[in-house]
Order: sequence, then structure tokens, then C-alpha cells
Amino acid sequence: MAMDGYRGFLGLLVAALLVGFLSVLFTLIWVLHYREGLGWDGSGLEFNWHPVLMVTGFVFIQGIAIIVYRLPWTWKCSKLLMKSIHAGLHATATLLAIIAVVAVFDYHSARAIPHMYSLHSWIGLTVVILYVLQLLLGVLIFLLPWAPLSVRAAAMPIHVYSGLLLFGTVIATVLMGVTEKLFFALKNPAYHSFPPEGVFTNTLGLLILVFGALIFWIATRPQWKRPKEAGSILQPNGGAADGMEGPMAVSVSSSADRSDAELNSDAAARKRTFGLDETGQRSTM
Amino acid sequence: MAMDGYRGFLGLLVAALLVGFLSVLFTLIWVLHYREGLGWDGSGLEFNWHPVLMVTGFVFIQGIAIIVYRLPWTWKCSKLLMKSIHAGLHATATLLAIIAVVAVFDYHSARAIPHMYSLHSWIGLTVVILYVLQLLLGVLIFLLPWAPLSVRAAAMPIHVYSGLLLFGTVIATVLMGVTEKLFFALKNPAYHSFPPEGVFTNTLGLLILVFGALIFWIATRPQWKRPKEAGSILQPNGGAADGMEGPMAVSVSSSADRSDAELNSDAAARKRTFGLDETGQRSTM
Repeated sequence: MAMDGYRGFLGLLVAALLVGFLSVLFTLIWVLHYREGLGWDGSGLEFNWHPVLMVTGFVFIQGIAIIVYRLPWTWKCSKLLMKSIHAGLHATATLLAIIAVVAVFDYHSARAIPHMYSLHSWIGLTVVILYVLQLLLGVLIFLLPWAPLSVRAAAMPIHVYSGLLLFGTVIATVLMGVTEKLFFALKNPAYHSFPPEGVFTNTLGLLILVFGALIFWIATRPQWKRPKEAGSILQPNGGAADGMEGPMAVSVSSSADRSDAELNSDAAARKRTFGLDETGQRSTM
Repeated sequence: MAMDGYRGFLGLLVAALLVGFLSVLFTLIWVLHYREGLGWDGSGLEFNWHPVLMVTGFVFIQGIAIIVYRLPWTWKCSKLLMKSIHAGLHATATLLAIIAVVAVFDYHSARAIPHMYSLHSWIGLTVVILYVLQLLLGVLIFLLPWAPLSVRAAAMPIHVYSGLLLFGTVIATVLMGVTEKLFFALKNPAYHSFPPEGVFTNTLGLLILVFGALIFWIATRPQWKRPKEAGSILQPNGGAADGMEGPMAVSVSSSADRSDAELNSDAAARKRTFGLDETGQRSTM
């Protein structure tokens, strides 16, 4: 990576981490300072785990999981290791999202509030189920060594598209949840009279949106994609699919008219561009 | 385009148009059947223009504007014509979105409801302003003949990214708006008792989300991108930027190490793949 590109990447990564941390911090301040705090007793304290776990797991950790291949200092790590980290972060996000769903179902049951009536709940539960499916298919096709390369190549553009779509839908669902909660909770003074909690939590919503925008930018710059390993096309956790994990770089997988030679010369060109040597700095596992 | 790819494209286009039409239809049924109808008198009738114009203009027309370059039967049309259609559709969407914002401000003023207190309004107004900016910059840089190719090439990935981000944010904002309105409007019977209007309008929300997902898929398949014109690199509304309007295909613009020869052989290969002849079927204007 040229020094300029590297600095640009680092700047955006730091910005994303900062905005992501602020989102989690703002969520904690919201529930601990403006709301009742946290607990697991069927009361509002239990409900409050819902936003905390969703923003921490389903927004922040999922966002980091999406861009983890793009950290240049991981390019010398094996692809299998990076896939495991990618899958592990998504699994962590899944776990936190499921606990967050349980918290809100528990809370509704304890208060005899009906389940699943709002648009937020319809989209939210759908996205959790599809996210679990995406994780299972991802492990089955890309992490485990059994799927043939043709299946990996065909599945990768769908995996990348679904991943970004689910991430965006999660953010939309969080913003709907914030909206819902503020209209419920802010009665006296009302939301429309600009109470500090309203302004503060609106700001939290903006932070989450900006975090999403930064992740979306980082994940879709072709120049920040993990370089392909030349000559590793036939290794199960090495080559062919490597070129396709970048959302914007699916042209490689879809250009059926491009030869392997072109792919390899591309890889070599990228290695030069990104300043890596050719002497096995990176293991392909 | 191979026949299979063409059929796949047509199928998804028809699906997107169908889901888009249904979204507009559902919005009309919502305000005409379940709500008070339409009018321009400061009452709820005026507010109701807000969802109608937003779903029609800011969701449906914007979505079509995004994918208009990808319709294969337009590839024989001049690039200038297609840019004008793209800009014209976005301008129409802008106009409808602005009228929709005016409707809700008018309604708030007539009822002495404060403006701009909700997260929906913060994000919504921001996105309208950024959308206008995106349109103005787009016309200035890509439609008018003055911007040098280097500026066009540098701006294109940002234009594509911003366009998709704004479209996604519009959909998120619409879903927040639906949530807000249903919690306001459904009191007796309440939203949580599953009244027909709640279920119907939740379904509208799902339709809008599916429309967004279909547009996002169509707009990001590299194989459905308008082919570049070989040999038109230096024409102001012809060449260099042509290869970059596809959101996922920015690799061409960013691979500084790829030569023009490669670009042109790509273009020729694409022409063969897409079954177009080389005899000037398409004007580059």
C-alpha cells in the first residue's frame, strides 16, 4: 500500500473505532444515566440490556468483523486465521444479539406486553435469523475445507452483498428502536420539548449512522483489499476465493473472460503496490 | 450480456419494479383508506403528502435513477442522454422530497408542534440537504462538459458511494418515519393489539426494505454494468468516467497500475461478452 493510501486507511480506521466506541459509550450513558440502569429482573433494567447489547454486538463488533481483512498488518497472517477471526467476531455479535432479543422478550412477558407487533420487531427478528444463517453458511462454505472452489467463487459475491445488506439493515433497525423508545419514554418533559435525553439520544443515532457510513466506505475501497496470494489458487484456504472477499472487487470473480495469468499478474502488481516482498511473508495455509 | 445473465437481470428488474409499485400503492392505500386522505390545509390531510411523496419520489424514483445505466436496451443510447435521464430522475426525486418536507413543516406549524426534535427529522433533513448537494455536484462534475477527466475519475467512486449511502439512509429514515407515525396514530385499538392498519403498514415497511435490497443488488453486480466505450477515453461525455459509474466496479478507476491498453482490452472483451458489435451501435457523445 502506498504511504498515502495507508495513512488514509489508518485515518478512517481510527475515525471508525472512535465513532464506534462513542456509540457504545453513549448507549451506556443513556441507560445508566438517563434510564434506570441495568439488571435482569423483567423490569426496565432488563430491557436496557437490549440497546446496550445491540449497539455493542450487532453494530460495533459486526462492523469490525466486516473490515478485519482490510487491516494491512494482518496481511502476513494466514487466511485461515483471518477467516477464524472474521467468523469469531460475527459469532460474538450473534451471541450478543440473541441475548439482546431474549432480554426484550423477557421484559415484554413480565409486563404482559404483546410480542412482535412493531415494524422494528418484524425487521429486527428477521435480520437476526438471516444473520445466523449467513454465519452458518459462511462457516460451511468458506471456513471449513470441504466446499469446492466453484461453490466458494459462486457464493462469495452473495456473501459480501448479504453481509453489507444485513449490516445496513441492523443500523436501520437500531434507529427505529431508538425512535420507538424515545417516543415511549419521553413523556414529561415530552420528546418534542427537546429534553436533554432526547437531544443526547438523537446524537447517539447520528453516531451509529456515521459508524455505518465509515465501515461501508472502508469495506468497499478496492485499494484496501487484502492482496491475493499468487500461485495459491488451488489451496482450500488460500487462493481463489481470496480475491473476492472485498465487496467492491467482485469483478475478479465475475469476469469469466479473464485468464488466470491475468489474475496472477494482478496479484503480483498488487504485491508491488502494497510494498510486500515475494518471499513468503504471508502464509496461505 | 449472456442470455442467462440477461434473464437474471430482467427477473430482478421486474421484481424491483413490482415491489416498488406495491410500496407506492400501499402508501396510497394507507393514507386514503386507513388515514384521513390527502389535502393541503395544515391538517393531517397535508401531513399525509409526506409519506406519499417520500415513498414515491425519495424511494421509488431515486431507486430507478440509481439503476438506469444498467438497462441493457439503453446501452446504445448516448452517455449524455443517459446522464440526463439519471440526473432528471434524481432531480424529480429531490423536488418531491422537498415538497414532502414542506408538507410536514406546514402541518407542524399549523398545529403548533415543534419542528426538528425527532431523530427521524434530524437524519431526514440532513439526507435531503446532502442529496441536493450530491445532485448539484453530480451535474457540475459529470453532466456539464467542463470538469477535467482527472476530477471526474477522482470524484466517481465518491459519487457512487454517496449515492448508495444516501439511498440506504433514506430507506432507514422512511422506516423510522413509519414507526413514529404508527405509535402516534394507533391508539384505539393500539399498535400492540395488531390492528389491521398496523399489520398493513408493517408490511409496507418490509416492501420498502425489499425494494432497497433489490436496487442494491442490481446496482452492484459488475456483470450488469454499462460497457465502456473503447477509444473514447478523451471525450468529455464519453470515455474515461464511463467505466466507473458501476458502484462495484471502481477497481478500474483505482488500479493506477493498470494501463490504458488493459482498460481498452477490457472494454473490447466486455463488448464481446455482451454481444454488442463494434460498429458504432453506441454513440459516445
